Amino acid sequence: MAGNTFGRLMKVTTFGESHGRALGVVVDGFPAGIAFDLEFIQSEMDRRRPGANSLGTKRDEKDQIKVLSGVFEGTTTGMPICMILENENQQSKDYSEIKDLFRPSHADYTYEMKYGIRDYRGGGRSSGRETSSRVAAGALAKLFLRSKGIEIKAGTVEVAGIKAENCNWDSISNELSCPDSEKTILMKEAIEKAREERESVGGIVECHITGVPVGLGEPCFDKLSSRLAAAIMSIGACKGFEIGEGFESARMKGSLYNDQMRVEDGKVSFNSNHSGGILGGISNGNEIVFRAAFKPTPSISREQLTITKDLENTTCLIKGRHDPCIVPRAVVVVEAMAALAIMDEYLISEAN
Amino acid sequence: MAGNTFGRLMKVTTFGESHGRALGVVVDGFPAGIAFDLEFIQSEMDRRRPGANSLGTKRDEKDQIKVLSGVFEGTTTGMPICMILENENQQSKDYSEIKDLFRPSHADYTYEMKYGIRDYRGGGRSSGRETSSRVAAGALAKLFLRSKGIEIKAGTVEVAGIKAENCNWDSISNELSCPDSEKTILMKEAIEKAREERESVGGIVECHITGVPVGLGEPCFDKLSSRLAAAIMSIGACKGFEIGEGFESARMKGSLYNDQMRVEDGKVSFNSNHSGGILGGISNGNEIVFRAAFKPTPSISREQLTITKDLENTTCLIKGRHDPCIVPRAVVVVEAMAALAIMDEYLISEAN
Amino acid sequence: MAGNTFGRLMKVTTFGESHGRALGVVVDGFPAGIAFDLEFIQSEMDRRRPGANSLGTKRDEKDQIKVLSGVFEGTTTGMPICMILENENQQSKDYSEIKDLFRPSHADYTYEMKYGIRDYRGGGRSSGRETSSRVAAGALAKLFLRSKGIEIKAGTVEVAGIKAENCNWDSISNELSCPDSEKTILMKEAIEKAREERESVGGIVECHITGVPVGLGEPCFDKLSSRLAAAIMSIGACKGFEIGEGFESARMKGSLYNDQMRVEDGKVSFNSNHSGGILGGISNGNEIVFRAAFKPTPSISREQLTITKDLENTTCLIKGRHDPCIVPRAVVVVEAMAALAIMDEYLISEAN
Amino acid sequence: MAGNTFGRLMKVTTFGESHGRALGVVVDGFPAGIAFDLEFIQSEMDRRRPGANSLGTKRDEKDQIKVLSGVFEGTTTGMPICMILENENQQSKDYSEIKDLFRPSHADYTYEMKYGIRDYRGGGRSSGRETSSRVAAGALAKLFLRSKGIEIKAGTVEVAGIKAENCNWDSISNELSCPDSEKTILMKEAIEKAREERESVGGIVECHITGVPVGLGEPCFDKLSSRLAAAIMSIGACKGFEIGEGFESARMKGSLYNDQMRVEDGKVSFNSNHSGGILGGISNGNEIVFRAAFKPTPSISREQLTITKDLENTTCLIKGRHDPCIVPRAVVVVEAMAALAIMDEYLISEAN
Repeated sequence: MAGNTFGRLMKVTTFGESHGRALGVVVDGFPAGIAFDLEFIQSEMDRRRPGANSLGTKRDEKDQIKVLSGVFEGTTTGMPICMILENENQQSKDYSEIKDLFRPSHADYTYEMKYGIRDYRGGGRSSGRETSSRVAAGALAKLFLRSKGIEIKAGTVEVAGIKAENCNWDSISNELSCPDSEKTILMKEAIEKAREERESVGGIVECHITGVPVGLGEPCFDKLSSRLAAAIMSIGACKGFEIGEGFESARMKGSLYNDQMRVEDGKVSFNSNHSGGILGGISNGNEIVFRAAFKPTPSISREQLTITKDLENTTCLIKGRHDPCIVPRAVVVVEAMAALAIMDEYLISEAN
Repeated sequence: MAGNTFGRLMKVTTFGESHGRALGVVVDGFPAGIAFDLEFIQSEMDRRRPGANSLGTKRDEKDQIKVLSGVFEGTTTGMPICMILENENQQSKDYSEIKDLFRPSHADYTYEMKYGIRDYRGGGRSSGRETSSRVAAGALAKLFLRSKGIEIKAGTVEVAGIKAENCNWDSISNELSCPDSEKTILMKEAIEKAREERESVGGIVECHITGVPVGLGEPCFDKLSSRLAAAIMSIGACKGFEIGEGFESARMKGSLYNDQMRVEDGKVSFNSNHSGGILGGISNGNEIVFRAAFKPTPSISREQLTITKDLENTTCLIKGRHDPCIVPRAVVVVEAMAALAIMDEYLISEAN
Repeated sequence: MAGNTFGRLMKVTTFGESHGRALGVVVDGFPAGIAFDLEFIQSEMDRRRPGANSLGTKRDEKDQIKVLSGVFEGTTTGMPICMILENENQQSKDYSEIKDLFRPSHADYTYEMKYGIRDYRGGGRSSGRETSSRVAAGALAKLFLRSKGIEIKAGTVEVAGIKAENCNWDSISNELSCPDSEKTILMKEAIEKAREERESVGGIVECHITGVPVGLGEPCFDKLSSRLAAAIMSIGACKGFEIGEGFESARMKGSLYNDQMRVEDGKVSFNSNHSGGILGGISNGNEIVFRAAFKPTPSISREQLTITKDLENTTCLIKGRHDPCIVPRAVVVVEAMAALAIMDEYLISEAN
Repeated sequence: MAGNTFGRLMKVTTFGESHGRALGVVVDGFPAGIAFDLEFIQSEMDRRRPGANSLGTKRDEKDQIKVLSGVFEGTTTGMPICMILENENQQSKDYSEIKDLFRPSHADYTYEMKYGIRDYRGGGRSSGRETSSRVAAGALAKLFLRSKGIEIKAGTVEVAGIKAENCNWDSISNELSCPDSEKTILMKEAIEKAREERESVGGIVECHITGVPVGLGEPCFDKLSSRLAAAIMSIGACKGFEIGEGFESARMKGSLYNDQMRVEDGKVSFNSNHSGGILGGISNGNEIVFRAAFKPTPSISREQLTITKDLENTTCLIKGRHDPCIVPRAVVVVEAMAALAIMDEYLISEAN
């Protein structure tokens, strides 16, 4: 079944394989009359690109956005906006190493079983490169949200067990997108060490959304927390999602957890934000805060046990340069998915 | 916007307020020809009911299912199945304590702001009683899944910081639905202590799904992990979701995390299940394992700061008997939502 | 698959069989704060009821609406509104005549083939009685639309080949809902004659929607014309739909067909309304006009050739009192479906 | 709101403006393992192209399909298939004639009012060229349906009031796609005459679908008739839809209309097909037959009254070469939309 569309009032549909002719996205339902800031969108693409930081892979993937539709004289028209990223260097690589076996903890096995065929070139559709389409759409959504006073900022708050502690969210290091400059150094060392050891490490991304009005989200199944969870958990390699105190809330007592309310000068405020900005599934005007856990990159340059397409035991050793940690690059993807989820809810809230 | 429907090929729509005339659910797209086992559905309802365990509230809420449609001569017909639960004792209680103020960490404030009106009787639509509709639909889904060899079993694995350790999933205590009988005693004590202190505590539910074939879930946005996260995070009071190693995977190295594969006697197996049964968003044939974190019950019999509908500062003291811990009752709700998510994917997978 | 839900921002889900325990509808996404006028809804139900006119069947089907949820102190709350119609006289009739054979031009054969089971009592889910749920939801939608200045009025404009010609849409006869009082007499005679001859006749319903603002409907697939067509063609027995000049437009020349525009006193008007109020799929501010064709009632008290469930040739003679013409009763159903389609678009248009 | 997606299990999303950089379509949910016959798809595109027949416009629009994703080694992979059509000759034309006024019976006025902006170049998104994306997707669907024995064939059966009568559906003239070769000559004359008179004419397309198994379509709102109506009425310029006897059924008596059934050699057949292959919203195994009415082309080279963007009265005279009759080119578009609707239902039916 079709699984490549996200959103209800605004529908975002992505397509494309890692080494196919192009990847892209159609954003349908984006309001008319918004200035289309291609430069900003391109700058968001650059945040995701490998090589944007010194720690990632060195591959050169120029993600040059090409706009096919929906923009007229620099302004959105309300029509579907299609943006594509052409894969310029579709050199016929040698895929003989991976085409007949299933790389451990990759999607190779499940795709082959489900579809009976898989585009093995660079991971095909299940490649991390798929997220470039999300970032392009997310950047567009940010343009809209910004015009409504809503800002989204994510950062790396844990890598290889090293946790950010003294966070300054207004001054985030570029290389790791970590709000704790001291811990950034340790995290970088951990990533470099993993690279040397032909290992990989995981981490946690935290996201803050400010300026969200009271009232986004629907009761019951379409709670804002549910929509955000769906958005974030759809990112490859994401294995956990929590909002506000999240898993820690399971260990708190009610009298401590509950966010008590006050009014001052006619303005409602909460004495705490353990709920992470969402009550009963609906935004309460507080900052929305959530975290997403990412597993270690599955591609490691070590010999691993696996099986072939013909169901025979073998081993595999994945060559090539791989990110020992995809967390820093996931930051902009998390922001993008949050932007798409929030924008969809924002549009819906206007219709009530 | 409509937010009370879950599912794509099978659509589950719930309705009803805590103290309204009835709550209920319409299950549309349920296959024809399945024996409708009302007794089983009723037994699932009883698992959720307060008073089902000695630790919950003592209120008597008989959740007697009444089937309005979609069943003919004991068999499902493919037509929408509507089941309702009438609220028998709609005595006109005195709601003067809560109708004009917002109980902390309840949905009172956000509902009032979003809709300009709220049914304050017993929490209205945002009451935990809303989940009874989910349990009824989930029980129906279990009947279908069982016929396909898929079983779903959840349990309480943490309460008030006390973690289950020696788990026997085949022998689960009834009172807490905890698979560790020793820890059950400590958990019960913690809950009783919370009650005495007019406090509340949270906890964690873990869920195991066996018999899932390879191939459920779609690429990109409709990954099985995303669908499960959306289903579970839509349960009131749920603040976190993780699959497989979840947040712990962020601290693991790739060589340890990756689930390596083997073939024996033509049968594919994995050396570990850190992925929790899902690879690239698609089930890999392994047991699906996920956890959900629940915050402490917001209703506590302590004075808390809050504001009135007219935006004036006040305090509130919520009377009445309340569950000091809703986690044990959430277990069957988690199972129900997992069943609905898995069944929807199962039906979709048949169409590929 | 689930097929019993209509709408996107407002989702209407119906359920129930003709002779089951109850029929009903859940209206999800209906805005909060609208006065719930039960009397009006009931009066709409009465328009659909057999026996509402002297020409229909004499059966006594009291469609007493019972509201289960979503209304608090006489006002809608934004929560799903469930309304049910209990079938009071579920007397165990004798269905031996029809349970083992397929009535010609009924859904008996297709349901049996698709589902392997069918509730044959009174036609089960495929009975015309299913439309009662639509009328209840449609009446609710009318309450909302009325508050926005949008009115929907349909009438019988053709029965058994007799066409209404001098139409006065402000004075519609109650018995046939025909705007031509003279032709009403001829139509009634034709229907009475059909009854005497144990025949049935079809007809055409025309619908006028006034007060629709410019801008409802979406480009491409979700044109307002497409949405209305889907809504109307989902009514049982409806075999054709046309908007504005409809099929006649195929015979017109462009210079005659095109609706030329003028401005007077700053107000835009069209010199004609051949388009029926929709241009490029979007409402243009003109009256929306469409027509729906209904086939003759399939139930006739004549012997017809058919086959049994066991695929043997037989004949059937359907006893009981049947409407020789369902068109007059379809009028309020057409209005209801138009109301649901327009209201959904109206809500969506607010979000752009 | 997003309106550019059609389908449920298979979602087809189109994008692009007439004179933008490219038009295209993403087909998501198309099954894996189908041979991707680009030549066939291209041949379908050619049927729609202006200049494909001697009667249409002489403009040269090469609709060369470029496949961006979802196909690997000549086979579909189950991933979204994106096909685009680049607009090669985006010469900066002079649009001064039309950019500030609303062409009568075009979407200019409604788009401007709804969105506050419109891409006026060649009609932008509301151009007939938008249907090229539908044809590409429809051709793909035909490949799938063909593998299931389902064939779709449409033809022009009426132009300017001239009706096809002696139809041979196996031998259709290429120029008008009319199954009556004699009437084709008269129709061509009528179109030529319209061109000379700077007029335009409308017509009717009839479509036959063979090989459809019993059981496609859902009860209630998602009847196959409703889905087909929605699909066809979403084509620009389509003003009416009827199935089987359609509007004529309103004039028939039940005893004549009803399709009586017989069994011969274990094979079920109907004595007639007045229902057009659909009973109770579900396919009955008979040929599905429907008709769609198209209005005359709105673009005529005559002076017409209209208004400017600044709401001032003016006249317009649309220059350039225009199709005096778009009906012949609509034939393949009707087939495409029928294919998309039927295929979506086919996939759904597999999941029941």
